[in-house]
Amino acid sequence: MFGDNAVIDIGINDQQNLPENGDSSNATAIKHLRNFSRRMCASVSSASRFSMLPRFESSNDARYDNFKTWSGKLERQISNFRGNPIELNTISDSQETEAESLPALDRYLDALEGPELDTLRASEKLVLPEDKTWPFLLRFPISSFGMCLGVGSQAMLWKALALSPTMSFMNISLTINLVLWCIAIGVFSLVASLYLLKVIFYFEAVKREYYHPVRINFFFAPWIACLFFAIGLPPHVGKNIPQIAWYVLMAPILSLDLKIYGQWMLGGERKLSKVANPSNHLAVVGNFVGSLLGASLGLKEGPIFFFAVGLAHYSVLFVTLYQRLPTNETLTKELHPVFFLFIAAPSVACTAWAKISGEFGIGARIPYFIAMFLYSSLAVRVNFFRGFRFSLAWWAYTFPMAGAAIATIRYAEQVNNLNSKALALTLSIISTFIVSILLIYTILHAFVFKSLFPNDIAIAISHKKSKSKTKLQRSTSIDLESCESPVKPAQ
Amino acid sequence: MFGDNAVIDIGINDQQNLPENGDSSNATAIKHLRNFSRRMCASVSSASRFSMLPRFESSNDARYDNFKTWSGKLERQISNFRGNPIELNTISDSQETEAESLPALDRYLDALEGPELDTLRASEKLVLPEDKTWPFLLRFPISSFGMCLGVGSQAMLWKALALSPTMSFMNISLTINLVLWCIAIGVFSLVASLYLLKVIFYFEAVKREYYHPVRINFFFAPWIACLFFAIGLPPHVGKNIPQIAWYVLMAPILSLDLKIYGQWMLGGERKLSKVANPSNHLAVVGNFVGSLLGASLGLKEGPIFFFAVGLAHYSVLFVTLYQRLPTNETLTKELHPVFFLFIAAPSVACTAWAKISGEFGIGARIPYFIAMFLYSSLAVRVNFFRGFRFSLAWWAYTFPMAGAAIATIRYAEQVNNLNSKALALTLSIISTFIVSILLIYTILHAFVFKSLFPNDIAIAISHKKSKSKTKLQRSTSIDLESCESPVKPAQ
Amino acid sequence: MFGDNAVIDIGINDQQNLPENGDSSNATAIKHLRNFSRRMCASVSSASRFSMLPRFESSNDARYDNFKTWSGKLERQISNFRGNPIELNTISDSQETEAESLPALDRYLDALEGPELDTLRASEKLVLPEDKTWPFLLRFPISSFGMCLGVGSQAMLWKALALSPTMSFMNISLTINLVLWCIAIGVFSLVASLYLLKVIFYFEAVKREYYHPVRINFFFAPWIACLFFAIGLPPHVGKNIPQIAWYVLMAPILSLDLKIYGQWMLGGERKLSKVANPSNHLAVVGNFVGSLLGASLGLKEGPIFFFAVGLAHYSVLFVTLYQRLPTNETLTKELHPVFFLFIAAPSVACTAWAKISGEFGIGARIPYFIAMFLYSSLAVRVNFFRGFRFSLAWWAYTFPMAGAAIATIRYAEQVNNLNSKALALTLSIISTFIVSILLIYTILHAFVFKSLFPNDIAIAISHKKSKSKTKLQRSTSIDLESCESPVKPAQ
Repeated sequence: MFGDNAVIDIGINDQQNLPENGDSSNATAIKHLRNFSRRMCASVSSASRFSMLPRFESSNDARYDNFKTWSGKLERQISNFRGNPIELNTISDSQETEAESLPALDRYLDALEGPELDTLRASEKLVLPEDKTWPFLLRFPISSFGMCLGVGSQAMLWKALALSPTMSFMNISLTINLVLWCIAIGVFSLVASLYLLKVIFYFEAVKREYYHPVRINFFFAPWIACLFFAIGLPPHVGKNIPQIAWYVLMAPILSLDLKIYGQWMLGGERKLSKVANPSNHLAVVGNFVGSLLGASLGLKEGPIFFFAVGLAHYSVLFVTLYQRLPTNETLTKELHPVFFLFIAAPSVACTAWAKISGEFGIGARIPYFIAMFLYSSLAVRVNFFRGFRFSLAWWAYTFPMAGAAIATIRYAEQVNNLNSKALALTLSIISTFIVSILLIYTILHAFVFKSLFPNDIAIAISHKKSKSKTKLQRSTSIDLESCESPVKPAQ
Repeated sequence: MFGDNAVIDIGINDQQNLPENGDSSNATAIKHLRNFSRRMCASVSSASRFSMLPRFESSNDARYDNFKTWSGKLERQISNFRGNPIELNTISDSQETEAESLPALDRYLDALEGPELDTLRASEKLVLPEDKTWPFLLRFPISSFGMCLGVGSQAMLWKALALSPTMSFMNISLTINLVLWCIAIGVFSLVASLYLLKVIFYFEAVKREYYHPVRINFFFAPWIACLFFAIGLPPHVGKNIPQIAWYVLMAPILSLDLKIYGQWMLGGERKLSKVANPSNHLAVVGNFVGSLLGASLGLKEGPIFFFAVGLAHYSVLFVTLYQRLPTNETLTKELHPVFFLFIAAPSVACTAWAKISGEFGIGARIPYFIAMFLYSSLAVRVNFFRGFRFSLAWWAYTFPMAGAAIATIRYAEQVNNLNSKALALTLSIISTFIVSILLIYTILHAFVFKSLFPNDIAIAISHKKSKSKTKLQRSTSIDLESCESPVKPAQ
Repeated sequence: MFGDNAVIDIGINDQQNLPENGDSSNATAIKHLRNFSRRMCASVSSASRFSMLPRFESSNDARYDNFKTWSGKLERQISNFRGNPIELNTISDSQETEAESLPALDRYLDALEGPELDTLRASEKLVLPEDKTWPFLLRFPISSFGMCLGVGSQAMLWKALALSPTMSFMNISLTINLVLWCIAIGVFSLVASLYLLKVIFYFEAVKREYYHPVRINFFFAPWIACLFFAIGLPPHVGKNIPQIAWYVLMAPILSLDLKIYGQWMLGGERKLSKVANPSNHLAVVGNFVGSLLGASLGLKEGPIFFFAVGLAHYSVLFVTLYQRLPTNETLTKELHPVFFLFIAAPSVACTAWAKISGEFGIGARIPYFIAMFLYSSLAVRVNFFRGFRFSLAWWAYTFPMAGAAIATIRYAEQVNNLNSKALALTLSIISTFIVSILLIYTILHAFVFKSLFPNDIAIAISHKKSKSKTKLQRSTSIDLESCESPVKPAQ
């Protein structure tokens, strides 16, 4: 559905091609994932074909052009290169449009609703056709990296279960870690490749995700996933990653930190009192994960640096989220799976601190118990977590549970009694159980409902209020509007 | 006034029966309190009589029915049992009313004012008669448990003074601790019994207290008081409580934590940015007190758990209260005795941390000095703490002073010099002095002004705006309204 | 410009007297500063002359009278003493005016704009003549003490560079420390004397600065500067200040803490959610500087006290500033040099904690790395720090850089490698470079643009809305306006 068909899928409507592997939907998920990655390699190798596909499709609907890289400039350059020159004034035109095409933050808040800001309000119109299925890459969101977080954290968890002396009574094989790790790497390669294609062909769409107040936090996900892979590295594969790799992995996280925390503190419309949302935890937890990995590699100063940065901004975020300021317009009123991200930062912070300080002392127990309290707080309200539309982003909300389970294993190593071991076991089971459930959901949505990648309306909002169209000047506004919000005035 | 007469008092107007011990108002307070508890035992033993009293009174004024348990269902069942069957449709009627009878949070904020939200705004009407004295139990607020906190913390303070090697130069006898502890236990038994009766007979009123944004914090008070009794346990009575008792005592605190912190973070109208108020400190300080007791009993993990939970939520609360967000509608503008609760959490946290870490090190001194600074900050503004109507809740605001005095005694044990000893002594004297003043006030209000338990209007607000009545349909609304908001339409 | 001419300058318009040392503007700044202080001594010794000057000027423009101490009462008393009695009813009149003359906080926020609230909004009028240059003392703001902070911190920095074993490879002489320290003391004496004169002669103006929501924080500056001098004390001058001096220096800081933090928490219109502004860091950093000095002098409890107070309030401030609440009306939207104050508190806190705990451990590194991250966060946005009107207050924004450099030197002592040494060196160079730039700016503004002390309009706002003036009755308002509250009585 999203691996093998991708080649054909991009730019072509889903309805037109039934997946040839529709019959194989009963096969095991792991096998599927392997297939995906294998076929993906093929599809990547034939990447040259992609470059033409968007052009083919663009003849169908010019509206997708606005989301293409340089509004299709690259594509036109390739066309030029192949001997089909196009007029220059078209390019300058499209550049003008492109400058307009990024909606302001307030537009996102006005036009979208829901905990992940991915549902269109009734009064709003899209700049892309609502009734058709868009090109695959336009429907492939950054939150797909959540899957890598989910599977990657499972790899870490099963490594911890296998290696922890406290849990040795369970005789868990390291092979599970290896298998999960390979799957995680496979999923990551697939997702990263697809998203890279999106960056190449639909850079405007990527920019619109980057400006989305919730989505931006998912830009941390690929780097956090890599950190997970390094921490969950199976002993079969290697003992440890080289220290230099840590610096390479932390560079993008530091850059994003500087960018996003700066926006919170210094910047106009993206200030924290406006955008605070549980998904911001993704923007903080990377520091702690990096700190944990660094300390595991034997580094000293770097881990403390990221721990300190994480601590300062986590405190700010924790207070802000707890306060539920009325100005936090992106913060949903109802409980939603995204709230499980609350557990992530203290869980990882506790493990990181234990590594940094060399023991699971009081300093590590304080974040640990905070995580446990928050976990309980959500667990007793588990009935409220229903009735939400499934989304791929949910995968990202499972890694905090794995984090809590790992922290409990570390805790049980220090406080070795029946209770702590039972807790470690229970949390591990819950975490793996939830991931399994999610896997089933994902497979169902992919192969049965065929709705794993619905139209990503979050990136297709118009950058002007649609209200004006209801006014009298409707007729005059048509030609002006047609360039960028090409929707019919007829309502 | 509230012990011996309670039996008769419930359901009957105060004005009608002068207390027979009105002449004994000069007797010592301690003797009184003993009398109260002794007589209370008698009154509790005759509890069967209570069950009838509300019924007698209900014939006087049907409006009280709405506050009775299951709107008087229990009472009717008893009547039924005795052979006086009542028709079923009345019950279903009253259940409908009862469903309506819990006002939303906004109603509390709209209808009430003052630092403890216990004064009715001019524009509002009550659902109970304003000109009559209500049944005693309806006038008996949960904040009465504040008295137990006040006396219980004195017992702890005098135990610390008697046992601390630093203060041994004062030769304070442990008997004071014993006497205070017994009084505290007595007061607690009395208050708890009366409140239990309220729970039994006026469960709707209890629910209305539970939904009151300030009162809800006082639901922590009974459990904190029990923790105080365990910490202040006189060596004559026993060396220590068994560890199992700690778990029993902490269970309700943990439940309330989960409930109330969840409301702050996750919940709609009770979010922290709306309800933050110094009385929330009661909801936090229980964790530290429990932590202190647990550490004293030799427990390890439990105390750190509650310390961590307390720390996280205290940080959030401290920042929120300091910010004085304009949305904090329950936060009074003027200084009020409730502000002394600011001292409670850091004082107790410092003692708890000293116990957990085994020494009064820097980690304990930081909260200690924060408490001292806040104390000074309030002390230099002592002139502003005047002109407020006395309320029983003030007792709760004295325990932070005892907490600060105890923390100073611990500090003086570590930093043993003249200054620290003088400070410990001064704070102890201030604390006991304030409690004595409050005792005098309480006695005056009980026996002289006969206003210790005024009508508790905070629980009797109507759940609809009284504005609508000013409209045209006034005449038609009369009959509909008369059942639960029995106010005149003529304004 | 502001030293030698001050004697003549006070009360006389600048335009009328060209500075006789206008030709010497190429001379070194240090020489100038020495001249200033030398001449200042002379001018102070001839202080008796000052007492008359305001009187001379007052005949020119009666509006300045409102800003004089007791509205010129002292001056009149002196006149009386000299045998020129004045009628009493004038005094009582002026007292009435004076009671009115302090604008409410909201007036400051309504009438002023800009990051330092020192620019008049278009709609507003001043109570002092806008077209004339006011008396020098009225134009001499409290933020001039920023200069002492800037130079004083340089003295500390060069002492650290000279004495640190890690930086010994640079062979920096202690003489630089001595020279800078002497300059700092000189500048301080000059500024303090002038401000003292302002306190004496224009107490109303000082009060207006004290009520200004940004300026009030600069009232901490003189005391912090003194702490800097004590820390940066050249070994040539003395080994250490006596411990008693610490208590003397900390007394005013503690008083201001109690006053200002109390306003944040307890007070009506000056609550933190309204006035939070990066300049509040000045109100917090004094605690850490005092803590550092105290620990250096071998004190134990005092430093921890101030560290704790600073920590608690810094946390609150940090969260509040990061949140950028929409109610923070004094918080500018754009980046401004004042944001460098963000680095101050964690830098100094880290050095202080290292002194208190006796080693540069994890506890010191956490604030250190937070400071470094904030520094980077501002450094990468350095392009935004342009286009602001120069003001003397900028000097205050340089000391955080010196603080960060000193913290890095301490860090390099612990983590002695090439990176840390290079960082220490770089930060020291940046810090000194910025101060040099600022010195050039100051000299340019003093001698070339002659605009070092422009009219301080922040203190001259009217205390009533001037809106009414835009209306029709403008012509009638002229004569009434001239005094100080230019609003129509007929409305």
